[in-house]
Amino acid sequence: MNKKKNENTSKLQIIPLGGLEQIGMNITAFRYEDSIIVVDCGLSFPDDDMLGIDLVIPDITYLQENIDKVKGFVITHGHEDHIGALPYVLHEMNVPIYATRLTMGIIEHKLEEHNMTKSTRRKVVKFGQSINLGQFRVEFIKTNHSIVDAAALAIYSPAGIVVHTGDFKVDYTPVYGDPIDLQRFAEIGKKGVLALMCDSTNAERPGFTASEKTVGKTFDSLFQEHKGRRIIVATFASNVDRVQQIINTACKFGRKVVVEGRSMVNIIDIAQKLECIQVPENTLIDIEQLKNYPESQQVIITTGSQGESMAALSRMASNQHKKISIGPNDTVIFSSNPIPGNEKAVTNVINELLMKGADVIFQDVHVSGHACQEDIKLIYTLVKPKYAIPVHGEYRHLIAQRNIARELGIPKDNIFILHSGEVLELDDSGAKVNGKVPVGAILVDGLGVGDVGNVVLRDRQHLAEDGIVIVVFGVDRTSAQLVSGPSIVSRGFVYVKESDKLIDEATDIVLDEVTEALSDGNADWGKLKGVVKDALSEYIWKKTKRRPMILPIIMDENV
Amino acid sequence: MNKKKNENTSKLQIIPLGGLEQIGMNITAFRYEDSIIVVDCGLSFPDDDMLGIDLVIPDITYLQENIDKVKGFVITHGHEDHIGALPYVLHEMNVPIYATRLTMGIIEHKLEEHNMTKSTRRKVVKFGQSINLGQFRVEFIKTNHSIVDAAALAIYSPAGIVVHTGDFKVDYTPVYGDPIDLQRFAEIGKKGVLALMCDSTNAERPGFTASEKTVGKTFDSLFQEHKGRRIIVATFASNVDRVQQIINTACKFGRKVVVEGRSMVNIIDIAQKLECIQVPENTLIDIEQLKNYPESQQVIITTGSQGESMAALSRMASNQHKKISIGPNDTVIFSSNPIPGNEKAVTNVINELLMKGADVIFQDVHVSGHACQEDIKLIYTLVKPKYAIPVHGEYRHLIAQRNIARELGIPKDNIFILHSGEVLELDDSGAKVNGKVPVGAILVDGLGVGDVGNVVLRDRQHLAEDGIVIVVFGVDRTSAQLVSGPSIVSRGFVYVKESDKLIDEATDIVLDEVTEALSDGNADWGKLKGVVKDALSEYIWKKTKRRPMILPIIMDENV
Repeated sequence: MNKKKNENTSKLQIIPLGGLEQIGMNITAFRYEDSIIVVDCGLSFPDDDMLGIDLVIPDITYLQENIDKVKGFVITHGHEDHIGALPYVLHEMNVPIYATRLTMGIIEHKLEEHNMTKSTRRKVVKFGQSINLGQFRVEFIKTNHSIVDAAALAIYSPAGIVVHTGDFKVDYTPVYGDPIDLQRFAEIGKKGVLALMCDSTNAERPGFTASEKTVGKTFDSLFQEHKGRRIIVATFASNVDRVQQIINTACKFGRKVVVEGRSMVNIIDIAQKLECIQVPENTLIDIEQLKNYPESQQVIITTGSQGESMAALSRMASNQHKKISIGPNDTVIFSSNPIPGNEKAVTNVINELLMKGADVIFQDVHVSGHACQEDIKLIYTLVKPKYAIPVHGEYRHLIAQRNIARELGIPKDNIFILHSGEVLELDDSGAKVNGKVPVGAILVDGLGVGDVGNVVLRDRQHLAEDGIVIVVFGVDRTSAQLVSGPSIVSRGFVYVKESDKLIDEATDIVLDEVTEALSDGNADWGKLKGVVKDALSEYIWKKTKRRPMILPIIMDENV
Repeated sequence: MNKKKNENTSKLQIIPLGGLEQIGMNITAFRYEDSIIVVDCGLSFPDDDMLGIDLVIPDITYLQENIDKVKGFVITHGHEDHIGALPYVLHEMNVPIYATRLTMGIIEHKLEEHNMTKSTRRKVVKFGQSINLGQFRVEFIKTNHSIVDAAALAIYSPAGIVVHTGDFKVDYTPVYGDPIDLQRFAEIGKKGVLALMCDSTNAERPGFTASEKTVGKTFDSLFQEHKGRRIIVATFASNVDRVQQIINTACKFGRKVVVEGRSMVNIIDIAQKLECIQVPENTLIDIEQLKNYPESQQVIITTGSQGESMAALSRMASNQHKKISIGPNDTVIFSSNPIPGNEKAVTNVINELLMKGADVIFQDVHVSGHACQEDIKLIYTLVKPKYAIPVHGEYRHLIAQRNIARELGIPKDNIFILHSGEVLELDDSGAKVNGKVPVGAILVDGLGVGDVGNVVLRDRQHLAEDGIVIVVFGVDRTSAQLVSGPSIVSRGFVYVKESDKLIDEATDIVLDEVTEALSDGNADWGKLKGVVKDALSEYIWKKTKRRPMILPIIMDENV
């Protein structure tokens, strides 16, 4: 299976299989001789032009072709862009998973949903602990991020050490657990690090990322200011620390808390079981109990901070939520910033909430989970890598980190902005891109994995733009006679009831074309479809300046 | 025609016909007894869910029903959201247009494109000049904005004076012409103003809007820093002052300038003819002449700063521009901020440019054309209106201006956040919403104005999501016999070549259903379509978790 038998395998290979051409779908293979480990296995969400697609997962052909060498998945943290493709990928190749406690808790919930818990080997790893995977040893290092139990990885190989930060920030005063283990970064740096793969998400932002705890103070003063009102806070479902802080403030002000939105309920449930969140007794109540408390004693923590149309907050804003309706006594706090691309959806929800009379607060109630420029400089300075490989971010963010690395004195030729599929070979004597492996994005639509490709997407885009015009007619192949139709049906093109004349004229044109095409006594399906398509699209363009999809269907009829 | 004969017409009526539920489509009717004037006549761009729609224009039923009273369109400035619907509306009702010089120049270009120049009466108005329109007198007051010749309006009626700011900013050092005529605002304010209708776009932003001239200084230092490189600047096509400043800086550094992008070429052309822009001789060159100059002596000013896929910059970034290709010696400057909703498109273009090796500058090379909070306070303080009617902006912006007005001491009941179609009746003794007129958004798709409605849009959305499955079969109505088919064709659903089995099974199901339904000897088209649709959608949902549009077509065949 492996086509690269003759390659020099005494070097370390780093092979990103996704995550570099887009946000999300993070998955990177590390290979040394006959050992492969895979860091993360994320999904990405569809681009605007991927109509009807639910999610996108990486092509793992390379791993399947080398399945005998793959020792396991090592997961940095529990966000969808790092774990979301696991159920799909594990379905194709059964490989053990290594992750920290909450990360594994979230993965296990996913596996349950896919009925894969029993078939999947997995091991919870503690911070500071190492696992041996073939020629690799992987150490999990404590970091901070917008989800609890995020880890950086020190990947020890015979060719040298690679430090992979995962998604991270530097938080000296985290809400839960310890600050990022900067001492360990320094210790490993002191040993000599071959390469640093560092989070680029905020590499364009100057300064430092503020501590999660600062948001807690903001909640305190907002709750003080909005006494007597019901408070609804929207944030990311997986931000357990944020939820913890809202609960803390709610308790201070004697309010009961409802958690609303399926994904948030799930994660808080898991976090409670694993004791990653401390909820004082009698604080969380069921949504049905809300009516037993005055509004001034209620807090609703909800999903929908990104304006997602099906999320709880959007349903409240548009009067489609069964249990909660918004009114002038509500203060809605967006504890989030819009992710690029979601601005309009968020703004629509804000407008709807304001129209219902609610007070809406959407500025400065959020801090990022990613390191800014000065934090990135700190990590580089502690780790002192020979090579820099910016990861996690769009191209503009990778370039921004490259500029930081150069500012810190890393030579231009030691910085690699990789593309998915490129094989970076490195050891202490040098590094270069050497070869490519197959990569790609596989579209998931409903139960279908990969059955919607470019042809189907192009058709959907065409249909979305101008609709479809279907022409059906029956032809007797032997006599080359038109025996039924033509009949024209359209959808998404024009409002049919007001376009009788257009359809009538189009039908006449088809009739003429078909009669003409059959006049030589030959019933050639391809030719018939061609002339009908051409004549009809020309006529419709002339009349409407639109280009609907034209679909001739010929029924083969023996009369 | 007019159903409101008995209404109290000794009050002033302000009737927004658009612009309050969305950005764009600004159009407001003012009526006093038998006189109606209309301020602005803009279009809006389609929302994401208006698939295939080119643009959206207001429903003018109210004006048509009162056509004998309509004295004219009074236009504040030449942006599409204030003039874009004019050709469509003038097609329905021939009414004179009043506007300042550049505004009229741009309108005339539009009329030419629609072959309407001869049929349209129009008058260019100078700042300070008034026009009499029935019971109204309208004075044009100089303001500043991101387009030259923007005007505020003082609308004098027997019931009192309304000041309408149009889109505006306060610029003490504008690039072209005079600063906003604050003295005149004060003078009119001193006379006593009934109502102020003020631009809300930036009402959420604290502080003052910086002068356009500050961008000129930024260009100077960027050109200095990027000597030796080709410079490409993307900005809004209609921002004549911005183009002026780029030309000024280009001249200082001895560079030749190419203007690229049809809409920008048109506007600069008009502005040059009207002497709103000063271009030193031998500065503007044709794109074909670029090759005669070294890159260090080139500047390209281009459209596409919003990431619009068909604009010149996007075509350059994606290698689809015939004359200009991007390389490592290019510095691309985005002299613009992304309009909400365009962030992702802009980021995609930035990524593409960076991948070609270009240097890309996208921060702090832009100032807004709209007044911030302190500027808005200034206008309120000069005008001292009795009533405040925030305009121009989404609901959140109107609310933000309402909060400013309240802070300035305007009583709550004197502030009106109107909805399109509401009739605000006011005079010195009071103001209230009294009645509604028909309003709406009319969709334009190609040549069709209003022929794409909700049904067609819903179909397009359905088609976009999961495609279409078409089932054709022929039935002899008299004998109730299936005589041809069923034949299944799909588009945008699954990749057909790999889904033979699914389609085969679906065909069998249809065959069973049709045979069953015909077994009682009755060929009921409605019933046949119903059973086929139900059976097929159930089967497809079970197999794929998708819901394509199912379209049964029955051919009526006499055998």
